[in-house]
Amino acid sequence: MHHSSTIHESLTAVFQVRRFPTGKAAGQGVASGVSGPCPPGRRTELAVLLWERALDPQKGTWSLPGGRLGDDEGLDASARRQLAEKVDVRELTHLEQLSVFSDPGRVPGPRRIASAYLGLVPLTAEPELPGDTAWHPVSALPAMSFDHGTVVEHARTRLAAKLSYTNIAFALAPSTFTMSTLREIYCAALGYDVDTTNLQRVLARRKVITPTGATAAPGRAGGRPAAVYRFTDSGLRVTDEFAALRPRAE
Amino acid sequence: MHHSSTIHESLTAVFQVRRFPTGKAAGQGVASGVSGPCPPGRRTELAVLLWERALDPQKGTWSLPGGRLGDDEGLDASARRQLAEKVDVRELTHLEQLSVFSDPGRVPGPRRIASAYLGLVPLTAEPELPGDTAWHPVSALPAMSFDHGTVVEHARTRLAAKLSYTNIAFALAPSTFTMSTLREIYCAALGYDVDTTNLQRVLARRKVITPTGATAAPGRAGGRPAAVYRFTDSGLRVTDEFAALRPRAE
Repeated sequence: MHHSSTIHESLTAVFQVRRFPTGKAAGQGVASGVSGPCPPGRRTELAVLLWERALDPQKGTWSLPGGRLGDDEGLDASARRQLAEKVDVRELTHLEQLSVFSDPGRVPGPRRIASAYLGLVPLTAEPELPGDTAWHPVSALPAMSFDHGTVVEHARTRLAAKLSYTNIAFALAPSTFTMSTLREIYCAALGYDVDTTNLQRVLARRKVITPTGATAAPGRAGGRPAAVYRFTDSGLRVTDEFAALRPRAE
Repeated sequence: MHHSSTIHESLTAVFQVRRFPTGKAAGQGVASGVSGPCPPGRRTELAVLLWERALDPQKGTWSLPGGRLGDDEGLDASARRQLAEKVDVRELTHLEQLSVFSDPGRVPGPRRIASAYLGLVPLTAEPELPGDTAWHPVSALPAMSFDHGTVVEHARTRLAAKLSYTNIAFALAPSTFTMSTLREIYCAALGYDVDTTNLQRVLARRKVITPTGATAAPGRAGGRPAAVYRFTDSGLRVTDEFAALRPRAE
């Protein structure tokens, strides 16, 4: 079998739950007047960081940040380096490998094998973006380059799965939050609404979240002050293992 | 940055829970007289498929099956093709990507980027192996080639994690089994014993296993006939998502 030159690249789907303005366009690719369920009537959405190609191939389509692996670096370091051109990597709260995209025809020209990553940025971060770069709701992607839309879909599926059995929401949430804000984050990341009371009960019982003891002032709607929580851990862990499978205490 | 030629390869850790003979050597790399906890005094162990290098570099060390990605194939197909030289791929009940090993110095010579896979074979399969290939207990690996020992460790960690929140044990178990056999499999794969009654209760409640209605004849120890189960699904699924995060029924 003849082996021609192959390029290896990283591609990162950086996600953030963002509050888009309602009733007006919120940037390129964002339909106006749309409102979502999180909470009903507002537009908190899972968004992905994309840049617009100024040159062919596929000029005008939108791409994930990434680029060619350097000779002297590993893939994780390369992904972080490529991201640093688009967003301050200190604002990344989580980065993990997804799968490798290796279809021989995935891009025109020399073969490129892409290691895909999922990156997360918390709700309250507001990274400065280069002029060619913008946040787009995952529910309304613009024309995507090559197979980058498929990478976004893989990343979204991985995130939704991990929300169900890990504490990964720590990487999307501010350092402290009310349950109302946390529900808004879960709803946007999952794409459907969840019940605040159930969410609080499940996450507290599994020690995923911890009350800080503080309360937040009531919102415009009034009512009682809301308890403020934080995530118990700031590293990824499986929160929900079968108790029957834990090693026995000695 | 200068880019020299880079090779992309697959490497697969194929695992099987195997019953090694007690009290005597069970092949190269297997210590004699060792007995484990699954069940106590027997030697059911998680084993990995390795082949011995007949040539330098690192002649005499043991390697995972794998090899160079062909120009006209994707990585998953390549991993299956490489494996077919060592084990009939029809016996593989599960294959998934782990992470990519991309350290520039991981092997001598031209750079090789390895996509690592986890493969599973059920307890009762007995693939015919080439002469250079053998099953080794993961707890007593022989001298391993390059970073292949690290790949095995990643695969073992992934498997143990997935045993706790998915039905992945379907790929290690025979098509039907008693709880005693299933406990033996979990114990070997996890490296510590689990309680049969708890295991049955948790897996049945979560609908991971289903009684077939049949019973197995008592073993040498006598006693009542044991209920026979099967896995409800033969594809991987997360079994243990937060109920609070399920979409509401309409």
